[in-house]
Amino acid sequence: MSAGLKVGIAGLGTVGVGVVKLLREQAELLCLRCGREIEVVAVSARDHGRDRGIDLAGLRWHDDAAALAADADVDVVVELIGGEGGIAKAVAETAIAHGKHVVTANKALIARHGTSLALAAEAAGVTLQFEAAVAGGIPIVKALREGLSGNRISRVYGILNGTCNYILTAMQESGRDFADVLQEAQDLGYAEADPAFDIDGVDAAHKLAILTSLAYGCPVNFDAVHIEGIRHVSAIDIEFAAELGYRIKLLAIARPTEAGIEQRVHPCMVASTTPIARVDGVFNAVVAEGDFVDRTVYEGRGAGEGPTASAVVADLVDIARGIRVPAFAVPAAELAQLQAAPMERHVGPYYIRLSVLDQPGVIADIAAILRDEAISIESMLQHGRADPGEAVPVVLITHETREASMMQALDKIGALASVQEAPKLIRMEML
Amino acid sequence: MSAGLKVGIAGLGTVGVGVVKLLREQAELLCLRCGREIEVVAVSARDHGRDRGIDLAGLRWHDDAAALAADADVDVVVELIGGEGGIAKAVAETAIAHGKHVVTANKALIARHGTSLALAAEAAGVTLQFEAAVAGGIPIVKALREGLSGNRISRVYGILNGTCNYILTAMQESGRDFADVLQEAQDLGYAEADPAFDIDGVDAAHKLAILTSLAYGCPVNFDAVHIEGIRHVSAIDIEFAAELGYRIKLLAIARPTEAGIEQRVHPCMVASTTPIARVDGVFNAVVAEGDFVDRTVYEGRGAGEGPTASAVVADLVDIARGIRVPAFAVPAAELAQLQAAPMERHVGPYYIRLSVLDQPGVIADIAAILRDEAISIESMLQHGRADPGEAVPVVLITHETREASMMQALDKIGALASVQEAPKLIRMEML
Repeated sequence: MSAGLKVGIAGLGTVGVGVVKLLREQAELLCLRCGREIEVVAVSARDHGRDRGIDLAGLRWHDDAAALAADADVDVVVELIGGEGGIAKAVAETAIAHGKHVVTANKALIARHGTSLALAAEAAGVTLQFEAAVAGGIPIVKALREGLSGNRISRVYGILNGTCNYILTAMQESGRDFADVLQEAQDLGYAEADPAFDIDGVDAAHKLAILTSLAYGCPVNFDAVHIEGIRHVSAIDIEFAAELGYRIKLLAIARPTEAGIEQRVHPCMVASTTPIARVDGVFNAVVAEGDFVDRTVYEGRGAGEGPTASAVVADLVDIARGIRVPAFAVPAAELAQLQAAPMERHVGPYYIRLSVLDQPGVIADIAAILRDEAISIESMLQHGRADPGEAVPVVLITHETREASMMQALDKIGALASVQEAPKLIRMEML
Repeated sequence: MSAGLKVGIAGLGTVGVGVVKLLREQAELLCLRCGREIEVVAVSARDHGRDRGIDLAGLRWHDDAAALAADADVDVVVELIGGEGGIAKAVAETAIAHGKHVVTANKALIARHGTSLALAAEAAGVTLQFEAAVAGGIPIVKALREGLSGNRISRVYGILNGTCNYILTAMQESGRDFADVLQEAQDLGYAEADPAFDIDGVDAAHKLAILTSLAYGCPVNFDAVHIEGIRHVSAIDIEFAAELGYRIKLLAIARPTEAGIEQRVHPCMVASTTPIARVDGVFNAVVAEGDFVDRTVYEGRGAGEGPTASAVVADLVDIARGIRVPAFAVPAAELAQLQAAPMERHVGPYYIRLSVLDQPGVIADIAAILRDEAISIESMLQHGRADPGEAVPVVLITHETREASMMQALDKIGALASVQEAPKLIRMEML
């Protein structure tokens, strides 16, 4: 049997502890599957004394994560510190510089510095792996990098943030509004005390930038992602969506268009009969559409100790088995600089909700504005009647429309005296 | 750049032609992803003259597939002849004996001879790959062999036959009976002229035997699979299922039990809210549950030129990239001889439909038989009343029951004078 694979773990939070537990519990199985042992030999964390429920005896302790990354008796460094730069980046760079493989669960790091880290790793002859960075429980990085290799990907999209999906599902099921459900999610531990990173779409955007690079063989381009969160989704929109046969999900979508590669994270109306519409609660799902394979769907837990540890260990198993595939499926030096499509060039159908005074001529004014922007209406929905002078919600569904035209039309519509609130827009995605 | 990978294709049916097309259309992309070319250099089929819509000029033609398998200028043999033994087996064995890697889409071959072929391949230092053999469009072999490596699999199950799922979906949607929908499926090309292999569950069982070996690290044991098809599923059962909140699917299920590894293919009642219940038409899906990752779901097309070619090429890409993983995740010599659980030891809830005369005492007789076998009833459903002397359907749902007890009870119930037809049984699966 080959020598064991010596692992150093930087960061002993939930995931780090999970990785240690998994490697210990499944040691025999992993040895059989890899033909060699995978052994944690060194760890690093801020607080040496804290009880983490695992025995650290016999492991080398580094107070300094960078020192762990340079530890001569470590083959692979597992970076679980988090954050897009700082120590996490230094740890990855140091490990690579010392000829060690790097496994990370850090989506912010890969979304920001994935290309340069991949270049460095390839120059050093080591691998950079990050299955846990996108939808922990779903082996989607491997699917895109290997399983779907024979395909051009026409679209990749998914539900990549469990917190948002939990909130939207709870809103759907209970009819309650966003703030109320967010509070509950925080009480239950499904949302952070500071939830901005999740509910404003940044976390999903990090993951999308990584998937885009894997699917299209281009450098990671997080800055090109159009990002909207779910704060503006209201109970009434979810109700209208249901009436129209749709559900509202926070989707992260990448696809090649005539204007370039489109990357966007925003609430979406999706037909309730599609597989992604039925992914509820904290579950994640990714759909990858290929020219030969057609639609493939992957669903699982997106976070948590077990699923994330499972993904980290899958990467370690690959390394132990001697599997060497470029981080983004093609050599980092050959990633193609693809044009990023600006959001103004996006084309698709839109759901628009207006709050208008129930008086003659209002719809005519709105229709005229849409006509002037060459926006074609597929359907219009109005419920009930208001007393004279009171507002009533009106919902419009458009045919395929260019985002720039839609925005101009909404500016003009919002300026009408009879329109009482800023118009609400939710993009529709044909799946 | 490394030398190209030279591929010989044995069998130029739909899939063989698809593989040639894919390798040609995506040549540039594949070269980038593999760092070398993947080139078809030789082919073999029965009829040289037939127009297949692809240009065979420049390819070495072998009338004899075994000669192709021995072709000195071929690195990988792709076996697409089909059949569990005969030429297909000879081609795989010859290729391995000549030091060539083997890629196959042949589930019958792997279900029957997978272990011995894997042993031979490992002895020869070549790989045996069969992603296309199970649910073509879904990279589930790779997921089990690599992506979920860190887990003990507590259950793996799926919809593995598109023909059966198409028929059951159409029955569900139209209320029509089996024979009627089968005829339509045949007219549409979704079912073969001789559909036995699909609708009697054999095809799904081949695939299940392969998944079981991958999931549990045991030799492929096709003979241990309990197999039932869908011929006995009737419209009335689908209707009762819907009323109870269930759908009927042909599932293939493997799991470790106290009695050993259970492998079974049969119609199942599954709660309509579960992901697998919503997989409709010709789509396939696999659910793998791991102790760390929890539930993972994979969905895609199970067959067809494009999806199957995609899977074959994924295997070729692995080989071109130098990825070498044992065929069944652990070295073939170390596959563990696990006890196979006999079906009599199966334990689960059952759906039973009886056709009984609507007269006093019938239910008491049935209840007494169930009591004597220690079978506990969860619910009972009866619709309408028949005229005296006519039969009425009665549905029973049991709590967890042992298969052997259930069978004994059904024998006795079937022998009651008031029971008009052989009792119908559909197992329920808690997902």
